[in-house]
Amino acid sequence: MDSANRQRFCAKVEYDGTDFLGFQVQARGRTVQGEIERALKAITGVETRVIGAGRTDRGVHAQGQVIAFEAEWKHGLADLQRALNAVLAADVVAVEMGLTAAGFHPRFSARSRTYRYTLLNQGRRSPGARRTAWHLSQPLETSAMAQASRCLIGTHDFATFGRPLKGNNTVRTVFRVEWQQQRPWLTFDIEANAFLNRMVRSIVGTLVLVGWGHKSAEEFEGLFQARDRSLIRKIAPAHGLCLMRVDYAMREGAVQ
Amino acid sequence: MDSANRQRFCAKVEYDGTDFLGFQVQARGRTVQGEIERALKAITGVETRVIGAGRTDRGVHAQGQVIAFEAEWKHGLADLQRALNAVLAADVVAVEMGLTAAGFHPRFSARSRTYRYTLLNQGRRSPGARRTAWHLSQPLETSAMAQASRCLIGTHDFATFGRPLKGNNTVRTVFRVEWQQQRPWLTFDIEANAFLNRMVRSIVGTLVLVGWGHKSAEEFEGLFQARDRSLIRKIAPAHGLCLMRVDYAMREGAVQ
Repeated sequence: MDSANRQRFCAKVEYDGTDFLGFQVQARGRTVQGEIERALKAITGVETRVIGAGRTDRGVHAQGQVIAFEAEWKHGLADLQRALNAVLAADVVAVEMGLTAAGFHPRFSARSRTYRYTLLNQGRRSPGARRTAWHLSQPLETSAMAQASRCLIGTHDFATFGRPLKGNNTVRTVFRVEWQQQRPWLTFDIEANAFLNRMVRSIVGTLVLVGWGHKSAEEFEGLFQARDRSLIRKIAPAHGLCLMRVDYAMREGAVQ
Repeated sequence: MDSANRQRFCAKVEYDGTDFLGFQVQARGRTVQGEIERALKAITGVETRVIGAGRTDRGVHAQGQVIAFEAEWKHGLADLQRALNAVLAADVVAVEMGLTAAGFHPRFSARSRTYRYTLLNQGRRSPGARRTAWHLSQPLETSAMAQASRCLIGTHDFATFGRPLKGNNTVRTVFRVEWQQQRPWLTFDIEANAFLNRMVRSIVGTLVLVGWGHKSAEEFEGLFQARDRSLIRKIAPAHGLCLMRVDYAMREGAVQ
């Protein structure tokens, strides 16, 4: 292929993580990256490598995953998006499509990621929400959870809440945490420059212990400061988690 | 079993219809009725027949299906509900439980049923809503659909829109129709004394043709008055439909 005709595309992608083994391609099993690569090959005829901003775990959803790939495409962006969505399975869709500079990398160029964790706090289960919210029957004291979560804001060593996918740097910067409640629903939004593996789920699981009164906000902060992953007793399940958005500096030319 | 100890229970049931072949037990395959009967047998040890208010089709959901059954149960209603929900699969749940008079029949005692049909009207698919909303890319003129649907209100012969499950009486009384839009979402609520098989889906499918300008409100009314099921060109898919509630006269003692 003549590389002069190749362009670099970026796309915002939404998916239901239920039936995926996670974002990243693995030796076996269905992944989001694998599904998008399959679709791109079907429409371009060429093996295409897809890079994502966040390596979401098995069962984790996304409303605003960002991907990039290179392809030779003679038609418009809207045509590419339409062709891709026509070939993609029902549980994944490209919601925006753009052209980007050669230097743009969805992961390395990202300034921040925002995840949302959704809880359903009522006695009974909900069949309709069973794939998207963590059902907890016991009442949660959300003010205690909100208070405890404040200590996460800032640049800290998050070793208690996860491990890095590469290397051993566990320092991350959390820009924002926010609890919202519309009973029986509770959501926890957290925005950070980057996340450790299982970080949000470990934080939410531990905050639930605070919400039940099993731990105080001070004990939560003590665990956080201990930088010891073995202290984590409760990890929230994957299906309540969703990658909501990835933000870039304007000059990176990513999908807005 | 000593029949003196038997009581008649009613329950409000919610389910995700995706993985069911419909409410009613069939010779083969998984049904909502079958799943509840299995759970009741597991907790009471006795074969128990369950009767439902509405025989929802394959793939149709419910937030307010009403069922009744007889059982010998020495503990409280809350215990029965908890035991049942502990045994039921994740896609069905009893949201309320009550005792009812011997004469109460979920179907025959019902005064009205309310169904909701949900549409997603935007260019792109939504992975998260693919099991609960009918996705239509082409813009719909909702005021035309709302206007056309008004002729449904009242007591009419609905033979154009479906056939009865038993007998050949196709006269039904529609109490209320209501379109609501919160773009890109559209919902259509319809309350009637009873429904013909596929009636809501045939109405919605035909109203979509009105929303696209393929048929006028007058043509819609003409089809309705023709009482001829063979004139229906478009039937909305099952997954957008949900049985929202069943209403009873107070004296029937059903779950409120």
